[in-house]
Amino acid sequence: MPLELRIETTNGKARAGRLLTPHAEIETPVFMPVGTLASVKGVPQDTLEELGAQIILGNTYHLYLRPGVDTVRRMGGLHGFMSWPRAILTDSGGFQVFSLNELRKVSEEGVTFRSHLDGSSHFFSPESAMEAQIGLGADIIMAFDECTEFPADRERMRASMELTARWAARSKKHFEEHKNEVPWGLQLQIPTLAAKNAARMGHPTLGEATQYLFGIVQGGMDRELRRESALRTIEIGFPGYAIGGLSVGEPRELTREIVESTLEHLPADKPRYLMGVGTPEEIVEYASLGVDMMDCVLPTRAARHGLLFTSEGKVSIKQARYAQDQGPLDPNCGCRVCRRYSRAYLRHLYASNEVLAQVLNTIHNLSFYLDTMRRVRHSISLGEESRFLSSVWSRPEP
Amino acid sequence: MPLELRIETTNGKARAGRLLTPHAEIETPVFMPVGTLASVKGVPQDTLEELGAQIILGNTYHLYLRPGVDTVRRMGGLHGFMSWPRAILTDSGGFQVFSLNELRKVSEEGVTFRSHLDGSSHFFSPESAMEAQIGLGADIIMAFDECTEFPADRERMRASMELTARWAARSKKHFEEHKNEVPWGLQLQIPTLAAKNAARMGHPTLGEATQYLFGIVQGGMDRELRRESALRTIEIGFPGYAIGGLSVGEPRELTREIVESTLEHLPADKPRYLMGVGTPEEIVEYASLGVDMMDCVLPTRAARHGLLFTSEGKVSIKQARYAQDQGPLDPNCGCRVCRRYSRAYLRHLYASNEVLAQVLNTIHNLSFYLDTMRRVRHSISLGEESRFLSSVWSRPEP
Repeated sequence: MPLELRIETTNGKARAGRLLTPHAEIETPVFMPVGTLASVKGVPQDTLEELGAQIILGNTYHLYLRPGVDTVRRMGGLHGFMSWPRAILTDSGGFQVFSLNELRKVSEEGVTFRSHLDGSSHFFSPESAMEAQIGLGADIIMAFDECTEFPADRERMRASMELTARWAARSKKHFEEHKNEVPWGLQLQIPTLAAKNAARMGHPTLGEATQYLFGIVQGGMDRELRRESALRTIEIGFPGYAIGGLSVGEPRELTREIVESTLEHLPADKPRYLMGVGTPEEIVEYASLGVDMMDCVLPTRAARHGLLFTSEGKVSIKQARYAQDQGPLDPNCGCRVCRRYSRAYLRHLYASNEVLAQVLNTIHNLSFYLDTMRRVRHSISLGEESRFLSSVWSRPEP
Repeated sequence: MPLELRIETTNGKARAGRLLTPHAEIETPVFMPVGTLASVKGVPQDTLEELGAQIILGNTYHLYLRPGVDTVRRMGGLHGFMSWPRAILTDSGGFQVFSLNELRKVSEEGVTFRSHLDGSSHFFSPESAMEAQIGLGADIIMAFDECTEFPADRERMRASMELTARWAARSKKHFEEHKNEVPWGLQLQIPTLAAKNAARMGHPTLGEATQYLFGIVQGGMDRELRRESALRTIEIGFPGYAIGGLSVGEPRELTREIVESTLEHLPADKPRYLMGVGTPEEIVEYASLGVDMMDCVLPTRAARHGLLFTSEGKVSIKQARYAQDQGPLDPNCGCRVCRRYSRAYLRHLYASNEVLAQVLNTIHNLSFYLDTMRRVRHSISLGEESRFLSSVWSRPEP
């Protein structure tokens, strides 16, 4: 079954649509909260549902180390394991191997790396990364890629891009041969919603549905290599395409330039996923360029450091100026945190190292990101291209 | 206005009733979750409401240090500060000064102690402890007492008990002179529920209601000194009486003996509060002896260490035996954790140091304690004294 992206409205390069996955229908453009270890840190799953999260992300590298793919597979995959009935996407592990392992060793076959937990040695290949992701059972999984470091010279960028292309072909081959091994059928209590979605997608049962494997465009910071990577990945053929290898230390203008030029080469009828970005302003901008899916640790990680995103700009809640501030964190936000608690209370929780600080801060930041993306969708539907950004934000950005 | 404890049914020494406080009507016997720093660690206030918590406890010592009484007072007291519309009780600070300060110096006037945070020097007297607790604005506050160490000889126990009695008289005097300074009137948005309760209690507005000051019985592990302490405290006259100075290292049988003998001397028509106990089995037992109110850090602290209370006994969720256990934590529990997550998932969260482990474990343990107390109430109503304990627990306790 092909993965269906139904584009409902376009506005300039931006588009609003619906993506039907085995476990959930996703309204795009969509922001995907990061749940590295099968948990969006500090936030219970029912709260994520209330926030309107339609798809969350798990990290294959982390889950492979803890609790291990076999455990998750036996529990019916991530959906059963973490009791999350909506959609999930897993990354390939390539980025974490790149970012968490100084001593990794890359060969044509794959990557040897050491666990950041205990130093034990492990090996990821396109085949083993597919095997892990099939066992984890996300709705959307990613081809195994090499994330090119920044800066890199052109020769290195080309070699890395070509390796990623060869790995993409091997990822697809292994996936096609093993895609029926996804453990959804093992799940004892299949969520009704997911079963219904599977039926809508033409699968008699969820157990007969399969995952969708996305290709990843690499090519470093070179527009021509990015074009070539896009064409080669499209030639292999995937139901969706991601832009990887950005947010690795390059200036933001360069990120935008590469995103914009790469998008030109991606098919309009397939979902486009920009990996690992960005600030609230950036996710609005990338949606305006035609990106459908984004993920980023920023809202959750910043929350843990007391940095909160609001309609009036960033708030560092640890500051003493908020110690007796009776106002809500964001007067324009309707989330359960802003409805109930004062800045003074949030400041106290953070200053006192109370765990509730992380819980409430994360809920608010995720709410802000998800609300922002909902406003982007609405703005696209309005069809007023020139006012795209200003209609998303209540006031001009600084 | 007197504090009204309406006793609805008795069963042997046990009694079930209702305690009307300015902010909430409390069904007794009641278990009070501990929210040391104006937060029950890791649990949002709306979740506490869903769990059915009717009254929570704050620690004056900790709140005095962070965020400081003045800040809480300016926010309308703890209710406004932490956005908790139901009842709150604060302790006097005496126990924390005792348990967190090796270098405290006790005189007739009060206690000099050092902050466990920064070593700064502070002084608590009956008067300043009242001032702090009036500023914090809990519904029920506690007389400033000295918690006698264990073991202690009889002379020391007597001297300490007599000091507590003199401090109780000073506490009451200061409270009576300053009780109208409670900051509820300052609160910008008084919860409707609280305003209604105040009206039921005969106060035209919540701002005209006052707190209730409880006396504390001390006397170490000596039954005769406990009796004398009870009589002297009752002579001073309080709307409720607490038994303090237990769970300080003495054997459990001795705790029970002292509780049972002390209760005989407390007036039947006033609420009886046993401070700082205990296990699920113990709170059932003490309720059966006629205790109306209890608090303990055990459910919340144990949760943070992966120790969970269930109808089938204690579960140490960190154990590898649960790594692939698909069952709920407690098959007889209907809490949001047991309804949704498996033991395998909870074990993974704990083993991976995920913050959600603390959140979910705490929710379950509190649910178990609050459910246990609800079953105790129900059991008292059944009027079957001989089957009191066995009707609370689904199976005999080990």
